[in-house]
Amino acid sequence: MKNTFGNNVSVTLFGESHGEAIGAVIDGLPAGVEVDEAFITHQLDLRRPFGKISTPRQEADRFSIVSGVFNGKTTGTPICVIIPNENTKSGDYSKNYGKARPGHADYTAYVKYNGSEDYRGGGHFSGRITAGLVAGGAIALDLLKKKGILIGTHIKKCAGIADDGFSDYDADIKFLSDAKFPVLNDNAKVEIISAIEKAAEAGDSVGGILETVVTGVPAGAGEPWFDSVESMLSHALFSIPAIKGVEFGAGFGCADMYGSQMNDQFRFENGAVTAETNNNGGINGGISNGMPILFSCAVKPTPSISKEQSTINFINGEDVTLNVTGRHDPCIVHRARVVVDSIVAITLCDLLSQKFGTDWLV
Amino acid sequence: MKNTFGNNVSVTLFGESHGEAIGAVIDGLPAGVEVDEAFITHQLDLRRPFGKISTPRQEADRFSIVSGVFNGKTTGTPICVIIPNENTKSGDYSKNYGKARPGHADYTAYVKYNGSEDYRGGGHFSGRITAGLVAGGAIALDLLKKKGILIGTHIKKCAGIADDGFSDYDADIKFLSDAKFPVLNDNAKVEIISAIEKAAEAGDSVGGILETVVTGVPAGAGEPWFDSVESMLSHALFSIPAIKGVEFGAGFGCADMYGSQMNDQFRFENGAVTAETNNNGGINGGISNGMPILFSCAVKPTPSISKEQSTINFINGEDVTLNVTGRHDPCIVHRARVVVDSIVAITLCDLLSQKFGTDWLV
Amino acid sequence: MKNTFGNNVSVTLFGESHGEAIGAVIDGLPAGVEVDEAFITHQLDLRRPFGKISTPRQEADRFSIVSGVFNGKTTGTPICVIIPNENTKSGDYSKNYGKARPGHADYTAYVKYNGSEDYRGGGHFSGRITAGLVAGGAIALDLLKKKGILIGTHIKKCAGIADDGFSDYDADIKFLSDAKFPVLNDNAKVEIISAIEKAAEAGDSVGGILETVVTGVPAGAGEPWFDSVESMLSHALFSIPAIKGVEFGAGFGCADMYGSQMNDQFRFENGAVTAETNNNGGINGGISNGMPILFSCAVKPTPSISKEQSTINFINGEDVTLNVTGRHDPCIVHRARVVVDSIVAITLCDLLSQKFGTDWLV
Amino acid sequence: MKNTFGNNVSVTLFGESHGEAIGAVIDGLPAGVEVDEAFITHQLDLRRPFGKISTPRQEADRFSIVSGVFNGKTTGTPICVIIPNENTKSGDYSKNYGKARPGHADYTAYVKYNGSEDYRGGGHFSGRITAGLVAGGAIALDLLKKKGILIGTHIKKCAGIADDGFSDYDADIKFLSDAKFPVLNDNAKVEIISAIEKAAEAGDSVGGILETVVTGVPAGAGEPWFDSVESMLSHALFSIPAIKGVEFGAGFGCADMYGSQMNDQFRFENGAVTAETNNNGGINGGISNGMPILFSCAVKPTPSISKEQSTINFINGEDVTLNVTGRHDPCIVHRARVVVDSIVAITLCDLLSQKFGTDWLV
Repeated sequence: MKNTFGNNVSVTLFGESHGEAIGAVIDGLPAGVEVDEAFITHQLDLRRPFGKISTPRQEADRFSIVSGVFNGKTTGTPICVIIPNENTKSGDYSKNYGKARPGHADYTAYVKYNGSEDYRGGGHFSGRITAGLVAGGAIALDLLKKKGILIGTHIKKCAGIADDGFSDYDADIKFLSDAKFPVLNDNAKVEIISAIEKAAEAGDSVGGILETVVTGVPAGAGEPWFDSVESMLSHALFSIPAIKGVEFGAGFGCADMYGSQMNDQFRFENGAVTAETNNNGGINGGISNGMPILFSCAVKPTPSISKEQSTINFINGEDVTLNVTGRHDPCIVHRARVVVDSIVAITLCDLLSQKFGTDWLV
Repeated sequence: MKNTFGNNVSVTLFGESHGEAIGAVIDGLPAGVEVDEAFITHQLDLRRPFGKISTPRQEADRFSIVSGVFNGKTTGTPICVIIPNENTKSGDYSKNYGKARPGHADYTAYVKYNGSEDYRGGGHFSGRITAGLVAGGAIALDLLKKKGILIGTHIKKCAGIADDGFSDYDADIKFLSDAKFPVLNDNAKVEIISAIEKAAEAGDSVGGILETVVTGVPAGAGEPWFDSVESMLSHALFSIPAIKGVEFGAGFGCADMYGSQMNDQFRFENGAVTAETNNNGGINGGISNGMPILFSCAVKPTPSISKEQSTINFINGEDVTLNVTGRHDPCIVHRARVVVDSIVAITLCDLLSQKFGTDWLV
Repeated sequence: MKNTFGNNVSVTLFGESHGEAIGAVIDGLPAGVEVDEAFITHQLDLRRPFGKISTPRQEADRFSIVSGVFNGKTTGTPICVIIPNENTKSGDYSKNYGKARPGHADYTAYVKYNGSEDYRGGGHFSGRITAGLVAGGAIALDLLKKKGILIGTHIKKCAGIADDGFSDYDADIKFLSDAKFPVLNDNAKVEIISAIEKAAEAGDSVGGILETVVTGVPAGAGEPWFDSVESMLSHALFSIPAIKGVEFGAGFGCADMYGSQMNDQFRFENGAVTAETNNNGGINGGISNGMPILFSCAVKPTPSISKEQSTINFINGEDVTLNVTGRHDPCIVHRARVVVDSIVAITLCDLLSQKFGTDWLV
Repeated sequence: MKNTFGNNVSVTLFGESHGEAIGAVIDGLPAGVEVDEAFITHQLDLRRPFGKISTPRQEADRFSIVSGVFNGKTTGTPICVIIPNENTKSGDYSKNYGKARPGHADYTAYVKYNGSEDYRGGGHFSGRITAGLVAGGAIALDLLKKKGILIGTHIKKCAGIADDGFSDYDADIKFLSDAKFPVLNDNAKVEIISAIEKAAEAGDSVGGILETVVTGVPAGAGEPWFDSVESMLSHALFSIPAIKGVEFGAGFGCADMYGSQMNDQFRFENGAVTAETNNNGGINGGISNGMPILFSCAVKPTPSISKEQSTINFINGEDVTLNVTGRHDPCIVHRARVVVDSIVAITLCDLLSQKFGTDWLV
């Protein structure tokens, strides 16, 4: 199922960085959900390059919903969102074909597609394809919000600089929903941006960690074993280019913990199940337990850097040196944030409709 | 698809900890592969409790292959492996029904299944179900070995004590394949076992990190976006109970790296593509690049501890204290190792047969 | 997904005719459904050979539910039903290996599995495997019944002799549920049985048509395009060996009809939507319209006949003549009936839970 | 998976009759296949209305391939084909909303989508959506042709008038590939067209049967049980609106045959496996046997007729009479032909790549 993911609610991605258009088909969302095109634009804006710390390639990201919406509401049938590619400079890329950019999919795409891949700007492997996901995911995010399910992601760490943790989920999520650069602590924000700019000047790039919270998911979502909340979310998250790690709750930190520390001891609070700690990230046995779902994603430094690198020319079999030109992001951590939110929203719609039926989501 | 995973090669799990039997159905493996029952037994032995650092519940794990094997070879049709449950002491569990063991799926299973779950010993959420996976996975491991694809996992860290990293993949994998307690450094092994025993004496448990290497995977396996090597492996790995984190290559460490450090600069070596570093874990753009696939999994401390804990009684809605009795593992990191190898082997068979066809695997 | 079918509710089949056991795993049924083992036995009895018109191979069909049922109720986790093979006479088959029985899968299995197939008694392609489906399907049938959804199938035609059509769905379904030989008209029943016996004496076999009605399915089940009620049911039905045709409502008869005859003109009757005719078989645009779902299946004559036949020996590449010995059914139309009901019940549970959620089924 | 079908090769459909555009995403086709846009146009022309026997709604069907094709060849990534809707007269439809057109999905779509469906011209249930399938299927047809696999479909019967059967598969397929009205016998063609015109004048419509042959499929394609050739093809075929029956080989005729007649007795001919008869339609046990695959589909009379009909108004709960105006086809059998060929081509690519790998198809 290559470019399609999900069971009851699914998403299919298509497009190449320098092709005619990129897009997504979201299927299985319930009928009758209002589609807020301004919110889709807002979400696409959050994904777009930002200031000096992003690529100068500016895409208008004019999206067009060609199906599945009628009179401003979802019809229940597949929603196809198309975003035409504009401002492409294909000439930048073709002359270097064969020289594998380190950290990119140039070489693997060549092997996989026997030399017929669209190599321009990373082709189908480009982060550009996530714009379709963000447009489609905006509808899922909106729908979940109406059910009281909120998603927020901040930069936990970037360029080695840490942000504060969440302090008040609801307030933080609200703040992040409009933040172009999603850092909770203002000083950390200034430092991180400065570090990115410094790396950019050196022709280099930086990575980071995104931390996400989802509040309002009822207990009982997810399936045992293979369709656990963790399995489904990680499947979705690792499909985002540059994501190299996913951890839930205490994650890798649990290697240094005792069971007596790790276990979240339940208690009732106003009739609701809760606990002092949330080291399991709101998930027990792969099923949501009603507490906030918490996870982090590692985002690698953008592989496109201006420094000279050694690599191979896979066409003629020679070792070469490469100076990548073109327009690049010295950091994509902040741009990846909204992609995470989008894909998580779609995946949660899928998991929730398995237990409760598609109609429950309206 | 709840308890079934995979496309061309799939696995279905069934069973409860204290039911009649647990088992797995592996479908899509090629026909004509020799089935080595001694190797299956060997793998099940690696999963079984070990010395003082494991539960005294000893299962013979007598497996029975009831389909899909004829004259000692796979037939190409579904292989069903059944392992009867023996030595079950259900009385230990039933009296505490309603008191959610912290860190376990008791409460979430109750909500998900509306009170009809088999609660004995964790029921369908028990780690016991992985025995079926190990039995079925042994056939996949064996098959990959014949194609030159080797999988090895060691304890990178446990109870806060670190093992050495891999130094020689082939030798290390060979060593680990027979190691009951998979630690590469002998001193570390002694220290870790001692720390586990100490935790056990205190009625507590410890967690750890497993590190896995897969050598010999040809470039070109995996699919863009949703069926990337990372997406498929993480989906499979997070279905193992207790796994709370998965990272590939440099993983979360990439947050502190520059692109110029993270990028693996390719070069040819004897005609083969290689690189000095492998921070991308053998995967670019979700597709294998021919270098070893490297990843780590965080394994949480066993939630079953003997210390008194606060929790809820979800039947009568009261806060209670709980003293978990029964037989427990103070650590399952070493036991989880062979489960990781098994599920990775099955998933790789699936990914490889997508590009090359099922017959390629023979 | 080879041997697994379904989305929210799925079934996985395994086993070979002369292996250790055959069985099925049903996943996704809701928790808390009472499991009536007597009804499962009753359904398996309907599938078993009957009098002189069936094979003398008598299987006790002692089934064992090894998972997914606790305290007499479904737990919501996978239900694995195992039926050991008994009374196998493998010696009958092995000596003829290589001589493809016409109409059977001997040759195609050989090609597909590169000569490693279990050829004894048809191996994995044997109708015997349907016993697992019947056992698992019984739970689904029972569950649907509690929701007011009833399924009944009769022999519309066999050996060229026609049965009466349905006259009163509820009464007919009730009658058929206990009928060992499911024919509505008593005279037709006598004639058909006599024709089968005559064919059996001549060493030959006969085919027939099964007609099924499903009452009580609410409007709105099924999905547009690929998961239409017709697509899903036909997918399931054509997986039954010997089924060579499926038609809904007027089916192939619509080639001789005008639109004005074919269209079912709706009207309200006591507030419910109905129509004089049901040529669309209760399905419009792939979605159930609330009227009875009606379809027919063509069942080919059993390919195992005692007459001498020409065929190939695919091992040595020679044309040969073959006298099939062993124990055969001169007709399987009546035995296939309960397989149809079973697979339809499972598929409907899947379709219904897509719209309404798994919990709706309880 | 609602609007997505297939495993290794899949197709996703989207769009509504009077929306902005309709289209399809084909994923999993191998890389490096030449894409012949003239052939796509040719196939779309075969689907378009024809002479007096079709709707006067003429669509230019200008398609646009927005992804998955580079330098005239497939890239191996998803191919998205978009066909804008033109010449829509939505005013014709909206005024009758609530009055369920008999035989159409108006009422079922209303129930399924809780009143939020796009009702204009049948919305997502319109035959118009098949244009995307035809465009995408053209690439699959072309690819199979290069592997020696040919598909041809003729009208076996229409308006009660029978065509000749196939006499020479290769010549007939070649003839049909350019035939706007696919009937083999010239007299039958004249009679059928005349009968359709007569029905049209009476404000009525007619149905028919399509017969398809596929030559060149190697033995060994298809999977046992649920992904049999019959299961997969019927699943795909029944997703075409108006198809109400599918039969393979002798199909429903087998109810009147003896096993000794039905069985296709194999023999070798120039080293290849063949048989005098092909009553099993080239499929044994769900697996292709190397002989031509033969099947027929029943196509119901177009439900849109000009005659007055009784029906319900599902908005106000009243019985009403309806005079459907707008532009209609008195027959769609000939137009459905190319849809059958397209969907069969895509499904065969999927089945073949399961055994042989995607790369085999190039």
